[in-house]
Amino acid sequence: MKMLLLLLACFPALARADFAWSYKCGQDSVCQRVPLADTNGEYIPLPKCRLACKAGGTLWPFPTGEVRIGSEVVSVNVGDFSIEAARTTRLQEAVAVFKNHFKSFTAPGEAQVKVQFQISDESSDLSLATDESYRLWIQTHNGNSIVVITALTFQGGRHGLETLSQLIQCEDQSCYMSAEVLISDAPKYPWRGVLLDTSRNYFTVPTIKKVIDGLSASKLNTFHWHITDTHSFPFYSKRRPKMTEWGAYSPEQIYTEEDIKDIVHYADVRGVRVLPELDAPAHSGNGYQWGEEEGLGKLAVCVNRDPWEKYCVEPPCGQMNLANPNLYDVVEDIYRDMLDTFTGSAFHIGGDEVNFNCWNTTKEVTDYMDGKNIPRTEEGFMELWNEYQEEALARFKKANGGKLKDMILWTSHMTEPEFLHYLDPSIYTVQYWESSTNKQLPNLVKKGFQVIMSNYDDLYLDCGFGAWVGEGNNWCSPYKGWQKIYMNDPKKYLAAQGVTDPALWSKIVGGETAMWTEQAGDQNAMTKIFPRSYALAERYWSDPATGWFEAEPRLVYFNSVMEKQRGIFGNTLKPEWCVQSQGICKLNKF
Amino acid sequence: MKMLLLLLACFPALARADFAWSYKCGQDSVCQRVPLADTNGEYIPLPKCRLACKAGGTLWPFPTGEVRIGSEVVSVNVGDFSIEAARTTRLQEAVAVFKNHFKSFTAPGEAQVKVQFQISDESSDLSLATDESYRLWIQTHNGNSIVVITALTFQGGRHGLETLSQLIQCEDQSCYMSAEVLISDAPKYPWRGVLLDTSRNYFTVPTIKKVIDGLSASKLNTFHWHITDTHSFPFYSKRRPKMTEWGAYSPEQIYTEEDIKDIVHYADVRGVRVLPELDAPAHSGNGYQWGEEEGLGKLAVCVNRDPWEKYCVEPPCGQMNLANPNLYDVVEDIYRDMLDTFTGSAFHIGGDEVNFNCWNTTKEVTDYMDGKNIPRTEEGFMELWNEYQEEALARFKKANGGKLKDMILWTSHMTEPEFLHYLDPSIYTVQYWESSTNKQLPNLVKKGFQVIMSNYDDLYLDCGFGAWVGEGNNWCSPYKGWQKIYMNDPKKYLAAQGVTDPALWSKIVGGETAMWTEQAGDQNAMTKIFPRSYALAERYWSDPATGWFEAEPRLVYFNSVMEKQRGIFGNTLKPEWCVQSQGICKLNKF
Repeated sequence: MKMLLLLLACFPALARADFAWSYKCGQDSVCQRVPLADTNGEYIPLPKCRLACKAGGTLWPFPTGEVRIGSEVVSVNVGDFSIEAARTTRLQEAVAVFKNHFKSFTAPGEAQVKVQFQISDESSDLSLATDESYRLWIQTHNGNSIVVITALTFQGGRHGLETLSQLIQCEDQSCYMSAEVLISDAPKYPWRGVLLDTSRNYFTVPTIKKVIDGLSASKLNTFHWHITDTHSFPFYSKRRPKMTEWGAYSPEQIYTEEDIKDIVHYADVRGVRVLPELDAPAHSGNGYQWGEEEGLGKLAVCVNRDPWEKYCVEPPCGQMNLANPNLYDVVEDIYRDMLDTFTGSAFHIGGDEVNFNCWNTTKEVTDYMDGKNIPRTEEGFMELWNEYQEEALARFKKANGGKLKDMILWTSHMTEPEFLHYLDPSIYTVQYWESSTNKQLPNLVKKGFQVIMSNYDDLYLDCGFGAWVGEGNNWCSPYKGWQKIYMNDPKKYLAAQGVTDPALWSKIVGGETAMWTEQAGDQNAMTKIFPRSYALAERYWSDPATGWFEAEPRLVYFNSVMEKQRGIFGNTLKPEWCVQSQGICKLNKF
Repeated sequence: MKMLLLLLACFPALARADFAWSYKCGQDSVCQRVPLADTNGEYIPLPKCRLACKAGGTLWPFPTGEVRIGSEVVSVNVGDFSIEAARTTRLQEAVAVFKNHFKSFTAPGEAQVKVQFQISDESSDLSLATDESYRLWIQTHNGNSIVVITALTFQGGRHGLETLSQLIQCEDQSCYMSAEVLISDAPKYPWRGVLLDTSRNYFTVPTIKKVIDGLSASKLNTFHWHITDTHSFPFYSKRRPKMTEWGAYSPEQIYTEEDIKDIVHYADVRGVRVLPELDAPAHSGNGYQWGEEEGLGKLAVCVNRDPWEKYCVEPPCGQMNLANPNLYDVVEDIYRDMLDTFTGSAFHIGGDEVNFNCWNTTKEVTDYMDGKNIPRTEEGFMELWNEYQEEALARFKKANGGKLKDMILWTSHMTEPEFLHYLDPSIYTVQYWESSTNKQLPNLVKKGFQVIMSNYDDLYLDCGFGAWVGEGNNWCSPYKGWQKIYMNDPKKYLAAQGVTDPALWSKIVGGETAMWTEQAGDQNAMTKIFPRSYALAERYWSDPATGWFEAEPRLVYFNSVMEKQRGIFGNTLKPEWCVQSQGICKLNKF
């Protein structure tokens, strides 16, 4: 013990005051918390140990190509990085975002760092065809580090920058960087996202940006904005301002054109597309009540009708009035306003949970059907619904200068095998929210549809809380832990239903977790979205051959870095002891 | 429509810009969101409607005595209240807290408001015997409102002030107050609290204060601070500073003497006691590793031992070394330090989840047992454990100047019928965390123990998330919704096990929800603690004869007020549409 005290006395600058621990690379390349005596009295910070101990132990999602990371670590000051001027303001902004992540770590570094970009197209759009691959190369010589990021597109280059930021780990004032790195990387699926519902509860712009921060940090590329629903209509339509006057929860709970442009831009420089959704013809109600007052007739029916159980899946009810031809002018104007602000290559046209009894109990609709000799049978209501689907699509095309985008549609009665003929697979990509074992999944890929996985039994982030109507727990309980999300492999689900042809597997273009917000609001949704959506990020970027058990130490560490360095506060995965004592908080087999 | 426009033109100041809705008292005394035309173009804010529409609709927990609230509502400015000077700084501080809640609502009020206190003992301690009753009287005449709060104790008077704040509801800049009120109120149970575990993850002082804010607002009176556990020891002991040097997660994650005094004072002026817990002899480990270095021998054994499954219930393991007599000097010093700062009338001495195999596989302990001829059987280990329990109690008494406090102990093997003889019901109050159907419950009350309910199957706030060790969901899944907590009636559970004597029911002194923090941290625990702990507040204050269904509209509204007026962000219970459309988001029977 005298020896230890002596050592501490010799290295006072290296020990952390009033702290008996250090970190050391132990067996299985795991950082272990050890008494200072075990590191000769020198305090080695956990971030430094993590970088040096296991190649790639700080990366999330894990790269899919070559990963060569040496154990040498140099201290750096990111503020002093010399970053070769990018050609576009877009890349310059991405670089500013990168630097900003490290702004609170101001200690001087040992290494002089130069970063160079070799990006073919800094103005690339993000679509299903975008090449998001990149190559990251770091070499250090005599205290000079060179970082080279090579990519075909802006999105790829930005991912490279994100990986670089994961190879820089910080504590207190200091940052450490891996000195020798070669990584080549590309995602396995082109569509990786999170849905946020801002209709059931309203989310402020800063919170939406925080969600985008989390997407960006884990290389998710899609913020699916379920911006309207029956509950409220916060999207400000400049052509139809009555929509928010009647549909917003208050005059303050509105997304203006300026807000949306701000968010779309914020996402773009972070490699994220914003996918707008106008859900229809169901999930529409509040906001549409002004039609009669303005002489356009009823735009929606069953709005807020009670007992709701008869006319919709949850209160409040509401469905578009397909008997009113004026409806389409309104929808077209909303499309126009959305297209003015949401500039991405895809659009979500809604399409879930149509309730036939609402229409069947609304005289205006039944008169319309009778007048057109549409029978009031299941087939008849499908015909009516399809009339909406076709006209809405035509209006969208008209509003978009005669072109469609990548049109996305929920699974529904219309995507069941017997009614799927209404839909054209060259037009629609289907977002699949049925259970992983439902027969729709194999049928959709066999019929040629591209599919985005959001099967509720793995990917719905709202499940497992108390019921919000009635007692017990909510409909899709239990809670979906990150492990379940991590194991959401669509190939496995297709194979279980007999689809083993890789060409059909490739119809799955990606996945999204879904944050429905009956029970989530501005101040608590982050804890439900993250770190679970990080699990999705690795599933659809890396398509890992190993399971959650192998990934856990990396995720636990990554989540703690997101908290400490980025201020992204998701749920807590473990006691902090487990973050500090890597790999011990697990089940043992003995 | 012309008529409406005309009306709007006549009352331009009363309508809310760009908002088509107002609120109106409808059938069943429910506030309904209605088009402005239904209120003649006048915008009536929801808070004003809520106050006027249903007597007590804004109160939580609901009073147990007389409740007379008139429908007249006056606008007020709380900053202008003339509040008769209290005799003590304690009550003056409570008044400042009250005023501070309304500081952002600055519109002038119609009524001049005078508040008077009639409190017998402004210096009262909070114990199980404290009278927390109060009487609140408001009368308004010619634009002058008189508020009188009568109570025997500071705590009662403060509750009266809290009820007054619930009868003042605000929106935008303006506040409204019920003009005619008579409420007499007292809690049905004296112990109503929330446990927060700051060992598994560390919580900052501002977050702890926010938790106390939520307690205070709902008349919960106990902040149970589970300040240490095996994982970390953040309590700074000035007599034994090595405890945090080895036990804190970092030098910054420590509660200093100053922090604790600040929190205890903060809680006191808000009517809340802080109950400290030193869990022992299990749930002890990290922090105790310095004994050998200082020549005191091992203070704890099995610390961080793996495979943990053999030696404890969750990683990391650790248990006190009962073979080492020096242990008791350390424990006594920690007690002394705790007693210096935690000045309340109760103390929690721990006592849960002792693992015999840890001791049985530790030579030092088995040698000690052999030396004293204690058999290595269940009975022998119980004898060993009891040796700790008796000596710890003696040291506590010594540290506290020869007196005990209200000593609280977890249920455990020692509180099972066959070993309960070790414990004296005149000394120990038992905190019951077994399931609601366990046989310990009736036995404890029959044997004369006071009991605090924390049965995990209703009151554990950590249940229902993904497992943190292994896959699937965590051990006490599913999630306990607020409805379940609201229905946590100990009389019902006792009766189900044949205990129907009200004298035995009265042994239950209250209840606590428990926020164990394996999976909760500084930035997300609030969303798990509230609003569910508000449900506990009404259960143990009001002991309601009706169930959660009747309480729901009040709770939903109260939670939204806590968010908007107090910045207490718990989980979201419903879409905001349901907050605005009272009583519609429920199951219908038809």
